[in-house]
Order: sequence, then structure tokens, then C-alpha cells
Amino acid sequence: MEVALESNAFFMGVEYLAIFCSGLMGGLCAVKKNYDLFAMMITAWLTALGGGIIRDVMLASLPPVGIADKGFVITALVSGLAVAVIHPEVDKLKWSMLTIDALSVGLFAVNGTSKAMLMGTSGMTAAFMGMFTALGGGLVRDMLLNDVPMVIRDKHWYAVPSAIGCILTVLVMKGTRIGLIDFTGEVVLDSAIVVLVVVLRLLSVKFNIVLPGALERHEVFLP
Amino acid sequence: MEVALESNAFFMGVEYLAIFCSGLMGGLCAVKKNYDLFAMMITAWLTALGGGIIRDVMLASLPPVGIADKGFVITALVSGLAVAVIHPEVDKLKWSMLTIDALSVGLFAVNGTSKAMLMGTSGMTAAFMGMFTALGGGLVRDMLLNDVPMVIRDKHWYAVPSAIGCILTVLVMKGTRIGLIDFTGEVVLDSAIVVLVVVLRLLSVKFNIVLPGALERHEVFLP
Amino acid sequence: MEVALESNAFFMGVEYLAIFCSGLMGGLCAVKKNYDLFAMMITAWLTALGGGIIRDVMLASLPPVGIADKGFVITALVSGLAVAVIHPEVDKLKWSMLTIDALSVGLFAVNGTSKAMLMGTSGMTAAFMGMFTALGGGLVRDMLLNDVPMVIRDKHWYAVPSAIGCILTVLVMKGTRIGLIDFTGEVVLDSAIVVLVVVLRLLSVKFNIVLPGALERHEVFLP
Repeated sequence: MEVALESNAFFMGVEYLAIFCSGLMGGLCAVKKNYDLFAMMITAWLTALGGGIIRDVMLASLPPVGIADKGFVITALVSGLAVAVIHPEVDKLKWSMLTIDALSVGLFAVNGTSKAMLMGTSGMTAAFMGMFTALGGGLVRDMLLNDVPMVIRDKHWYAVPSAIGCILTVLVMKGTRIGLIDFTGEVVLDSAIVVLVVVLRLLSVKFNIVLPGALERHEVFLP
Repeated sequence: MEVALESNAFFMGVEYLAIFCSGLMGGLCAVKKNYDLFAMMITAWLTALGGGIIRDVMLASLPPVGIADKGFVITALVSGLAVAVIHPEVDKLKWSMLTIDALSVGLFAVNGTSKAMLMGTSGMTAAFMGMFTALGGGLVRDMLLNDVPMVIRDKHWYAVPSAIGCILTVLVMKGTRIGLIDFTGEVVLDSAIVVLVVVLRLLSVKFNIVLPGALERHEVFLP
Repeated sequence: MEVALESNAFFMGVEYLAIFCSGLMGGLCAVKKNYDLFAMMITAWLTALGGGIIRDVMLASLPPVGIADKGFVITALVSGLAVAVIHPEVDKLKWSMLTIDALSVGLFAVNGTSKAMLMGTSGMTAAFMGMFTALGGGLVRDMLLNDVPMVIRDKHWYAVPSAIGCILTVLVMKGTRIGLIDFTGEVVLDSAIVVLVVVLRLLSVKFNIVLPGALERHEVFLP
């Protein structure tokens, strides 16, 4: 059995594109901090594939895809080399990169969740695994570069769309299992979830929609 | 076979309380840094359950309890939501929270060590696993929020009581194995260890007892 | 089957020396930040054995050697205690320590790669595992102490020699498998690789040879 959004050449192409672009975004962080080529390749690789590595460690599916899959690894490392040259363009194309980053978050969320469920985890565990896949790479990158992770720092919706995407994917997988949804339906619905994640993310940045913080309170009620 | 301090409703209640309270303490860190609701939930969850996740990864007991156990996960996430509202109270109750935090460190140390030994590890490995369970959550939280972990920063005894607790738990488990200690004895001794950890921690904070640092030396002896 | 460079007492002695010395270097970081004895022991242990722990988690060889092997663990913890006393000497012996640190990087790279291949991974995966073993400890230590990891920060060759060492080790192992290289040859070649890593590292520091960073460009080419 395979994950719906890896079932044909088009979706695999989208996945490679997502890996390459998150690698570019990751490598860009190293460029901005004036690190060397090797650091760019490491941050590109971790950003693109670190989330999947965390997921595979948690699911005991070892060695992780992000280490053992030649195609994925080479794509990620090459993106780290590429950004050393094309960093001004990557930096300039803010909205395009934001869109592609959101696409990769959405795609990794759906695929990560699906893979976990195919391995027989519960829905809640699978949703966590989807979140790890989608957000783990950026998180590890920022911990490595000694920044507070973007998923914590960024006031705009970043984790929330991916959480919604993971939960919807769990529902789609459950529908597929009981025969309510056929394979074509799964592909269509999974694609729709990815689009939803992208749209939610972009709307949040465009219209500055943010999650509330803690309730502001100045009195303390204690016995 | 089960862990002594999870063997009845009372101890399970204490464990849920410990998870909830370490979640509160974790979420409070995110509140103080003005992060949003989602960040509070993530830090609460990692603080409360991250240590157990590290232990389970090291013991290949996957997926980790901190991801797969609905009761634990929901308790931790709810504590992250709760702290958004009750943060002034949590902040104010310093000594109560310190006590409950020490309680959770002690409880996680004893239970983490016991779980590892039940899975057949050596005593030394089990003690490490107890330490991971007790201290790992706060460690991951602080790495995430870009602080030096409290276990490194805090001059007061924090790691030391939990190390003592883990080593004593190993001795109790070994006593149980050779029939020297029966189940009731194990429960009593394990509870005593938790109390000891709490007392050591509180004494250290109250009377400002600290571990020595490096020896101060100004000459260098070299051939 | 065993790893070539752990096959006799001499090589085991070198490995213990490498662990002890990376522990000293790790503990020194904690001394310089005025942390307490326990923090020194933790950072010494993580620096010396953290890389192997990451490798073992990725290879599902659990519990990791860095937790379960009494000799290794005690050596690392003792180095953390030792540095509390001999830190002025460790700090002063810059070139000696740099050499021994490079030795441990080289040795861990070769042994980490060999262990992975003996467990049946592909060459690429094994090279990654060698890199984790060689560089992971320092990386985790720096993340813990809230620094940007030395492998990212240090402009001199640090990751590159270890990458070269890992790739050469893969070639040696492949040669051994097809009968091209006998056991003696493997020992000799593996030792030569360790020496090569040390020499590359020292040459880079001595003559200030660095990897290039990103291409400096001030125009942006976009359609």
C-alpha cells in the first residue's frame, strides 16, 4: 500500500519540488548568517528532511527516509548548494517562496499523517506524526542556528493550518478504510487538504490574522 | 507487570496531576515570552511528556507514550490552554509550583527507571532512562525556547536529587527481583524516594545549597 | 563481526583516550560558562558519546552504546569531573587538544561508518551515520549550551574532513566485502583515514584554509 500523494509521477514531482524549495529556504538562513557551504548543505538537508527523520524515529521505521532515500537526500543537498548561488533571487521572491513553503508544509502534513496511519497507528498518533513531518524540519534548523523556531515565533498561522491538515487527513484515511472513499476520492481530498493548508497560511500572512496569546490579566485571584 | 507507582487509581491520579502541573510550568515560559496559544500548548506538552518521549525512543518502545496515550496527551495540551488564563496564579504560587515540579521530577524519575528495568535494561541504563524522563522535558522545552536548560542553569540541586532517586529506584527494583522486597514494600519505598527527591530539592532552594563549580585555579602546571 | 579499529587492545585504548579527551573538551565549555559539577559531567558525556547515541537511535540499535556501555559512560563522566580540576591545563594545551579532538572526530567517523555498514545499511546511510557519530556530540552539546554548533560556526575544515573520512571508510568496507582488502589491509587503511582526517583538520587551522560561503551578488535576476 502506498501514500495517495506519492502514487504517481506528478505527485512525486510535487514532493521533490517541495523538498527542493524547503531546502532553499533552509539554506537561505545559513547564507544570511554568513556560514559556509557545508553549513548551507546541512541546514538545507535538515529543513527539508528533518521532520520526516523525526517521524521515522518515532515510528521505528529505520533508517529514516531522510537519510536512506538517495533521491530525497541528493535533492536536499543540491538545494543547499544552489542557494549559495541563487540566494538573492530566493530572498526576493518572498511571496512565491512563502507559497511553496506552505505547499511543502501541507504536503508533508498529509503524507506524514498518511504514512503513520498506513503503519497502523491511532489517529491521534498519526496526526502528531504529520505535524512532526511538516514542522520538525524548520524546528530542528532553528534550534541548530540558535533561533527560536519559526513555528513558535511566527505570529501568523503556521502550525494551525498544518494541524487542521493532519486532522482532516486522519478523517480521510478513516473514510478510506471503511470503504466510504475510494482511491480517486482519497487523492482528490488529500490534494484539497494541501490547498487548504496553503490558503489558510497565505490568508493569515496577507490579512495579518493571528492566534490569541495569553489572556492579559493584572489581578491575581488566590485564596 | 506494571510499574508500582501506576498500580492504583491514587498513583495514577498523582501522575496526571504531575503531568498537568509540569504542563502549567512549561506553558508559563511561553506566556512570559508572549508567544501564542499554540506555542503554549506545544511547550506545555513537551515539558510534561518530552522526557518520557526521549526515554521511549531510547528503549525502542514506540510510538512513545507521550504521543500515543490519549489521557496523557490531552492532560498536557489542556494544561497549555489553562495557563493562558491562569498564568498570574501559576506565577504567584512559586513555592507550591516548585513543590509540585519537584514532585513531578521525583515521580517521573521513579517511574521512568522502573519502566526501563521492567523492559530488562541494566541498572545503569535504567538510571539514565529515569533521568531522561525526569529532566528531558524541561531540557527540550528550554532548547526550543532558546534558553540554556534549567537543569544546567539552576545552581540549586535539580539533577542531583533526581539522580539519587533513580539510583535508589534501581536498588529497590533489584531488591524486588530477588524477593527481598514484596509489592507493598516496593510501593512504600518508591513513594519514599519521591518524597526524598522533593525534600532535597526544596531544602536546596530554601537554604541555597549548591553544587560546587570548577576548582578556581590561576596557575597552569604543564611540563 | 567487529569493527576493525576496535579489534585489539591498542585500538580500544585509542578509543577510550578519544572519549576521555572529547569529554574534557566538552566539560571545558561548561567550566567557561561557570556551570556546576553536574553540568560539566552532562556536557562531557554528551560531547563524548552523544554522536554515537544519535547513530544508534537512527539504526535502531537500542539502548545506545553511549548509555549502556559501562566503560564508555564512566570514562565520559570521569572526564567531566577531571576537567573541574585540570581546566587550566586543558585550556592551555590548545594544539594538543585540537589534535586529539581531530583524532576523536576521525576515529568516531571511521568506527561509526563501519558499525553502520556491518549492520547492513547502504553506503550513503553509513556515511551519514559516521558523520552523526563524529559530529553529533559537539552539536548536541552546543545546542544544549545555547551556542551555534562549532561545526556550523567554525570556518575551518571540521565537517569536511569527517565527510571525506566517512566516504573513504565506505569504500574500504566495500573493498573488504568483495575480498579485495583483507583484515590487516582494513586496519591499515582505516588507520590511514583517521590520520588523514587529523591532518586535514590541522592544516586547515594552521594555514587558515576555509570553505567558501555563498557567492556574493548584488544584482537580482528575475523575470
